[in-house]
Amino acid sequence: MSHSAPRSVRVDLAGRSYDILIGRDLLRKSGAFIAEATDKARACLIVTDENVAPHHLATLQGGLDASGLLHSHLILSPGEKTKNWTNLEKVVETILANKLERGDLIIALGGGVIGDLSGFAASVARRGMRFIQIPTTLLAQVDSSVGGKTGINSPVGKNLIGAFHQPSLVLADTALLDTLPLRERRAGYAEIVKYGLIDRPDFFEWLEKGAWQGVIEGGEAREEAVAISCQCKAAIVARDEHETGDRALLNLGHTFGHALEALVNYDGARLVHGEGVAIGMAMAHRFSAHLGLCEQELPSRVAEHLEAVGLPTRLDQVPGGTGNAEEILEAIRQDKKVSRGTLTFILTKGLGKSFIAKGVEEAKVLDFLKREGA
Amino acid sequence: MSHSAPRSVRVDLAGRSYDILIGRDLLRKSGAFIAEATDKARACLIVTDENVAPHHLATLQGGLDASGLLHSHLILSPGEKTKNWTNLEKVVETILANKLERGDLIIALGGGVIGDLSGFAASVARRGMRFIQIPTTLLAQVDSSVGGKTGINSPVGKNLIGAFHQPSLVLADTALLDTLPLRERRAGYAEIVKYGLIDRPDFFEWLEKGAWQGVIEGGEAREEAVAISCQCKAAIVARDEHETGDRALLNLGHTFGHALEALVNYDGARLVHGEGVAIGMAMAHRFSAHLGLCEQELPSRVAEHLEAVGLPTRLDQVPGGTGNAEEILEAIRQDKKVSRGTLTFILTKGLGKSFIAKGVEEAKVLDFLKREGA
Repeated sequence: MSHSAPRSVRVDLAGRSYDILIGRDLLRKSGAFIAEATDKARACLIVTDENVAPHHLATLQGGLDASGLLHSHLILSPGEKTKNWTNLEKVVETILANKLERGDLIIALGGGVIGDLSGFAASVARRGMRFIQIPTTLLAQVDSSVGGKTGINSPVGKNLIGAFHQPSLVLADTALLDTLPLRERRAGYAEIVKYGLIDRPDFFEWLEKGAWQGVIEGGEAREEAVAISCQCKAAIVARDEHETGDRALLNLGHTFGHALEALVNYDGARLVHGEGVAIGMAMAHRFSAHLGLCEQELPSRVAEHLEAVGLPTRLDQVPGGTGNAEEILEAIRQDKKVSRGTLTFILTKGLGKSFIAKGVEEAKVLDFLKREGA
Repeated sequence: MSHSAPRSVRVDLAGRSYDILIGRDLLRKSGAFIAEATDKARACLIVTDENVAPHHLATLQGGLDASGLLHSHLILSPGEKTKNWTNLEKVVETILANKLERGDLIIALGGGVIGDLSGFAASVARRGMRFIQIPTTLLAQVDSSVGGKTGINSPVGKNLIGAFHQPSLVLADTALLDTLPLRERRAGYAEIVKYGLIDRPDFFEWLEKGAWQGVIEGGEAREEAVAISCQCKAAIVARDEHETGDRALLNLGHTFGHALEALVNYDGARLVHGEGVAIGMAMAHRFSAHLGLCEQELPSRVAEHLEAVGLPTRLDQVPGGTGNAEEILEAIRQDKKVSRGTLTFILTKGLGKSFIAKGVEEAKVLDFLKREGA
């Protein structure tokens, strides 16, 4: 099933509302979509990385030319380490040196790293410029490009510096995913499963029954899964833009996952973000069962699905190991969701019944981590 | 006339509303005021500079101790050059390294440089922490501490990088101004005059008739003038927080002023911000008369008052000169208020009748600058 007109998901945030367009081959028509969504834009800076540029930069430039949008570009190194102060300064100063004005645009063409960094740069250049997300990975299409969280990493921890800055438009071209390595498609899929596990058991069951294969391999289920994922995230973001409440649900699997990423020093060869989230979601379900919060069979069902897709679910699957229980706990403490020394986890009461569990005792976490073999 | 309870000016911004407290000796009681305005704060980082710390840091620390607020501090070099990327990184990473959490506070104890830098750091650390302004200069008390503009400078121009981030409280202790050098009190006074010239002719006349002496020397008029100035700014900010319209009125005198500051390379020995604004306001009035927008006598009246206070009003009063007309025009073009190559000025139709003049022709600006002797 192919669609000539893209699917559209609205992120409803009053004056900061915007559309996510989802479909195949949107990049070639990008200029028309961007011109329609943004008035007064005259010029833009495209920010991308060395992996993405050879595949997609020329197509984007052609799309912009077709609509008469002036453009320049900046190509950065790929990888999580790019989200640092040096590159933030580089993107912002390039915007200013190129004399982009307040009504002009920053276009992020890449995965989560490029989107987070460019969005943050857009939010601080001239105290706020508009930006467009063109996510080129499955992970970015269903998660990081939606919701307005932008930022860079600190030596102290990931994503501790940034801004809430909503894009003016997200163009999720699902054809761009065809050339992604299988490992990256699987990693992005972890965030799709997450929405099912948060509050959409029907979506989880649809994926589990076989739709997952179309998402990974590029069948008719892919656009549907991306659209539902964006709807799920948009709904949560719309009711809690600045993460004072429900938005924390999106961290399902992320408290353990972030700790593991930190412990491998964000070495993507050992663990990419989606793999950390997959292990983290499996652990969050086992922890919930361990605490008697959900039925004992649920963790196996969740882990079996993740394993069927080819995702890791256990600490011992991280090459080189992740440190012992105390080290994992310390990494969790460093996470920004710590509040006055108590730990917050997203746990579950059943399939698609996740909730925010505040004040979880450290002793119980340590005990659980030791049972996990840490 | 002294007041035991401070005057209070409310900045009305829905969920981001806050109070400005104005009075003598507020610093000693700072802990109590801060505790009342902010719940859940447990700890804070005080950011200040080498000029301010010897005079006021211990008093602030005593005030915080009295209310049981934990505190650490960071002392930076004084001066405009401190508003750079290096110090932004230093403040943010100190916040994170000190393990301040989302509910904790950043306290800016200093002039506009410390307030702008610390407020920006607070806005990006953990994607937004609360901060308190304790302005120690007259300029900061009546202008930069109010309204939520925060930021740093770019090599391309001043204040081109930043965020709109409102403080949770402003404590304007007017006794702190007693020990300021006369030149700094005069420079701050320029921003007070500005509010009269924007839309409060009654305020201008009150100042002109003699109240100005109390403001400069520390008489009963000082708290009154600071309070009225904050009210004027708060009213404009409340109707245009993000500078899409009326807020630009606050730039009266600043388009010329910023250009002059840039042309002396922000060398405070030659020209401080308030002096640039004084010359800029005098020029904006002469430019308005030159264009036939206001009566021919108005510029002299405004300049005479500024000169009575001891402020400069002409280009030739800047030691070392400011460049020729073309150079000043180019510096104006670099200003962030340029929109698509046309120039925007704040001009006037009479005393206290300033307005936003868009699309001013560059040829007319050049002609005027040459008449000014540039």
